[in-house]
Amino acid sequence: MKPLLQIALDHTDLVSALDTVHRVKDYVDVVECGTILCFCEGIKTVSVIKTLCPEKIVVCDLKCCDAGEILAKQAFSAGAKWMTVVCAAPLATMITTKKIADSYQGEIQIELFGNWTFEDAKEWVKNGITQAIYHRGRDAQAAGQGWSQSDLDKMKRLSDLGIGLSVTGGITPESISTFKDINVKVFIAGRALSAAADPKKAATQFREQIDKYWD
Amino acid sequence: MKPLLQIALDHTDLVSALDTVHRVKDYVDVVECGTILCFCEGIKTVSVIKTLCPEKIVVCDLKCCDAGEILAKQAFSAGAKWMTVVCAAPLATMITTKKIADSYQGEIQIELFGNWTFEDAKEWVKNGITQAIYHRGRDAQAAGQGWSQSDLDKMKRLSDLGIGLSVTGGITPESISTFKDINVKVFIAGRALSAAADPKKAATQFREQIDKYWD
Repeated sequence: MKPLLQIALDHTDLVSALDTVHRVKDYVDVVECGTILCFCEGIKTVSVIKTLCPEKIVVCDLKCCDAGEILAKQAFSAGAKWMTVVCAAPLATMITTKKIADSYQGEIQIELFGNWTFEDAKEWVKNGITQAIYHRGRDAQAAGQGWSQSDLDKMKRLSDLGIGLSVTGGITPESISTFKDINVKVFIAGRALSAAADPKKAATQFREQIDKYWD
Repeated sequence: MKPLLQIALDHTDLVSALDTVHRVKDYVDVVECGTILCFCEGIKTVSVIKTLCPEKIVVCDLKCCDAGEILAKQAFSAGAKWMTVVCAAPLATMITTKKIADSYQGEIQIELFGNWTFEDAKEWVKNGITQAIYHRGRDAQAAGQGWSQSDLDKMKRLSDLGIGLSVTGGITPESISTFKDINVKVFIAGRALSAAADPKKAATQFREQIDKYWD
């Protein structure tokens, strides 16, 4: 399947986020209420975005570590289709969160940071979790750390376990080809779309690259 | 130093949280805007709590994994004195977050989940981070996992590295003695205080136990 295109809304206020939504929503498949936005404005952002983009997949990027049941109920009842859980969360949290997700026909995505292992990943798959987010962190990025062969090898191994990957961290149309051997489910773009003078053109450039490398 | 007493506000709405604040704030040292509350109502909860409890330490339990600079600026400018960062966050995120914390004379607390190592902990200390939160997760707790000797041994090793520990997860006055050999900085209570018919009495029971085991 062709990778989808996701806009990450990482604004600190809802009005700025809505400006981006207004400009880019017609050109993406998935709209993400980012952690920053959720923390600054609260869970209502998810309801607002879902109301404005009823036909899009809405992701609530809570990066849940604990209290999965309560957070998942909040996110999915607000209209999220996907919600993120940090890989460092206890398996009990992942299972609880997935159960709530299932009841809303939603899914959880494991966000990969730090010392996760492939043994962990096998446990996720065994528990029916099929999505993960491979992340070049904003701060790692700012510290000049790029995509390495080690990153790509890990992504490939995760794909091979049956996990659909969302890839994020300074993704541009030029970087898409880097991931051509990986089963990418979603490319997440932030400023490459939101700061583009012509978001439609920017999205088209992403799609052209995606079409070139995936059937 | 004697451990402090912290109330965790993990409500899904600000009004319920304020009801608890109103009832317990005179009996605690630290008031925590929990992850659930922050996500449900947004960062304004920190400003509201700080306004109502100007003389208390306010913790913003963001469980930051990334985007440390933006999140820390939000939390500390809203009045937080401490802010949580997940142990799985890249070291770059911890360093960035700590830099912002320093500029507000605040501190960050590393929240321990999953596969952290003592090598990680040494890096935290080396970078001037002096607090961590040892957590029996809500979901782990619900799954019947208690405090083990392994937990206590890890806490002791962290103390010995110079890290002040906040201890959380179903803490009651009866469980305080479990931690008597550890350099506990804060005991975090939730329902043991907020659901008590007489919060003053419940807090006194905590203080009595603390006085018994710490000078």
